[in-house]
Amino acid sequence: MPVEIPHDSVGLVSPRVEHFDTPLELACGRALEQYDLVIETYGELNAEASNAILICHALSGNHHVAGYHSLEDRKPGWWDSAVGPGKCIDTQRFFVVALNNLGGCHGSTGPKSLNPATGKPYGPDFPIITVTDWVNSQARLADRLGIQQWAAVVGGSLGGMQALQWSISYPERLRHCVVIAAAPKLSTQNIAFNEVARQAISKDPQFFQGHYYEQGVVPKTGLMLARMVGHITYLSEDGMREKFGRELRSGKINFDFHPQFEIESYLHYQGEQFSTVFDANTYLLMTKALDYFDPAAEFGNDLTAALSQVKCRFFVVSFTTDWRFSPERSREIVDALIDAGQPVTYSEIEAAHGHDAFLIPIPRYMEVFSAYMQRVAAEIGEEHAR
Amino acid sequence: MPVEIPHDSVGLVSPRVEHFDTPLELACGRALEQYDLVIETYGELNAEASNAILICHALSGNHHVAGYHSLEDRKPGWWDSAVGPGKCIDTQRFFVVALNNLGGCHGSTGPKSLNPATGKPYGPDFPIITVTDWVNSQARLADRLGIQQWAAVVGGSLGGMQALQWSISYPERLRHCVVIAAAPKLSTQNIAFNEVARQAISKDPQFFQGHYYEQGVVPKTGLMLARMVGHITYLSEDGMREKFGRELRSGKINFDFHPQFEIESYLHYQGEQFSTVFDANTYLLMTKALDYFDPAAEFGNDLTAALSQVKCRFFVVSFTTDWRFSPERSREIVDALIDAGQPVTYSEIEAAHGHDAFLIPIPRYMEVFSAYMQRVAAEIGEEHAR
Repeated sequence: MPVEIPHDSVGLVSPRVEHFDTPLELACGRALEQYDLVIETYGELNAEASNAILICHALSGNHHVAGYHSLEDRKPGWWDSAVGPGKCIDTQRFFVVALNNLGGCHGSTGPKSLNPATGKPYGPDFPIITVTDWVNSQARLADRLGIQQWAAVVGGSLGGMQALQWSISYPERLRHCVVIAAAPKLSTQNIAFNEVARQAISKDPQFFQGHYYEQGVVPKTGLMLARMVGHITYLSEDGMREKFGRELRSGKINFDFHPQFEIESYLHYQGEQFSTVFDANTYLLMTKALDYFDPAAEFGNDLTAALSQVKCRFFVVSFTTDWRFSPERSREIVDALIDAGQPVTYSEIEAAHGHDAFLIPIPRYMEVFSAYMQRVAAEIGEEHAR
Repeated sequence: MPVEIPHDSVGLVSPRVEHFDTPLELACGRALEQYDLVIETYGELNAEASNAILICHALSGNHHVAGYHSLEDRKPGWWDSAVGPGKCIDTQRFFVVALNNLGGCHGSTGPKSLNPATGKPYGPDFPIITVTDWVNSQARLADRLGIQQWAAVVGGSLGGMQALQWSISYPERLRHCVVIAAAPKLSTQNIAFNEVARQAISKDPQFFQGHYYEQGVVPKTGLMLARMVGHITYLSEDGMREKFGRELRSGKINFDFHPQFEIESYLHYQGEQFSTVFDANTYLLMTKALDYFDPAAEFGNDLTAALSQVKCRFFVVSFTTDWRFSPERSREIVDALIDAGQPVTYSEIEAAHGHDAFLIPIPRYMEVFSAYMQRVAAEIGEEHAR
């Protein structure tokens, strides 16, 4: 519980649900006849509706980006370090919109929602969702909120991929695209790790081919293993060594199979926690959205061609020890943008935290991110002045 | 089936069992009252018993290093590329000894062996075995075979760790130590991946807390997941991309959860195969031996101190894209040897294959390995001449 809410917090916030009943055609060929998106917003939309920022979430994220849901909340939203009054994404200047993506498990329509056609949870019958589908659903959300053009679409990791897709799918509808710790598509190794996670979940006897809701159980072990593998890829090798080393919990080797190195306990804890809050079918969907993301594919595998029609300016950020989506992968985006003659600012941040760095308020990262967003904010002022 | 056995093969070989009934005291404080080691030997021991080479195996290896067990064998032993007449470890000059380590599942006493005290398989009651324990058991094997001093102890990965431990535990008993693709201890990340594998196995409902033999089942899913994770760490990211890329089996995205990228099918196949041949309890033991290996620990965490009393010469090999035990880790060994004033030859091999490279006959690797072993062989000749 925060004794008192920090002065630079957006404070107490409440999610709300936006219902949509125009069918959404999906890349897989199916359609969602109706769906809910749960959202949070912070700050005020200006009269011109020109100060709106969309924040897209990563694999396990959601709409609760900043602030607290109650005074009893132990932790604020997942990107509270970057979103709030006076922060990088300054809620005194911007109207910030965050949502839980379709297929999610935090309030938007997803596998654990009731399928209106059957009256039962969708479970494994929920359609496979792509990054493009998400962006289409977000465009409808923008329509609903009266936002014709985002000042910026911002995201880290899978969120950055959504921002990138926005620039391609709706070039007129964003002025800035902020792509943090992302990649233009998954590497073979990325896909391999995702498949291990999927196998861990789907081979868990409690998975019941995705129909575990009806059984009153969850594939806890599978989710735990998936999260443990994921977590290893989120941390850098150096960061792990610095944080956990080969330290033993009891100071000595036990000669048994209980967790004894600190890193083992940490991974158990992370896996356990995650398995109690996250939905297994959603995890499968999110990893598939990652695997399938490849905006260059429709352009003859030419990322430069894919980015040749974009209209926004780009801010791309990577972190030196990120081995999930390494700086090399961000530079592929930057190089394609340069080749396509598009304006791009690139920052490679020295950080020991691996992929997780995008969530951490590393001073240099916060400085460059703030500076970029201040430019975005200043433009809004200039537009006012015209 | 080999139509005919290649001329540079050791040919048809047979394993044999050596029984030991002097109790072996283990690092964990327990003892094995009696045990079997299954071994293969190639070549002839010379009259002075000075031409013997010990080959130590890695996590999933065994005593069948070279040659064929029958004319129906589809594949030769796991290191046939390096061991045979005229090969790096030339069986015309050396007497080669290979064994399945204690705790293994290929004929040496391990968890699936009958515990003489109970008449049932040891299962989870098999003691935790360390690299030092293995080296002690191998020293007894050397006694049995009349080998007072190895011309060389050779190993890759976990096998290299055994070679390194030999140089410390029995400095008088080897003239050369060949440490390939190894590390002086696991990194935090290495331990983390091992723990994911162990959790996958031990949380498999078919594991029955290690007593699956009595149930007539095996924790197949757990072993499959463990092998899939392992396999990712054996391959380099670049090697994976070159071999599998983002190729789709059917040429298009299926929008379902069946394996569709080539890498997914490959990992499934590897995991499946492994789960039908390898023992789960052995897998757990092998990963613990890896985690616990840390020869510097007894010397105040000073690897130089640990290596100050060794008497042999060292050949250390690493591979550029190995990220399981990277060249940096091999250089820690080399640096400590240099600091300790010990003779060492180091070779860093350009190779795209990641950790797996140590098993692959990469020309430059085979050249330097051959050259080193020819020197070892030449010394034997010189000793004869004296």
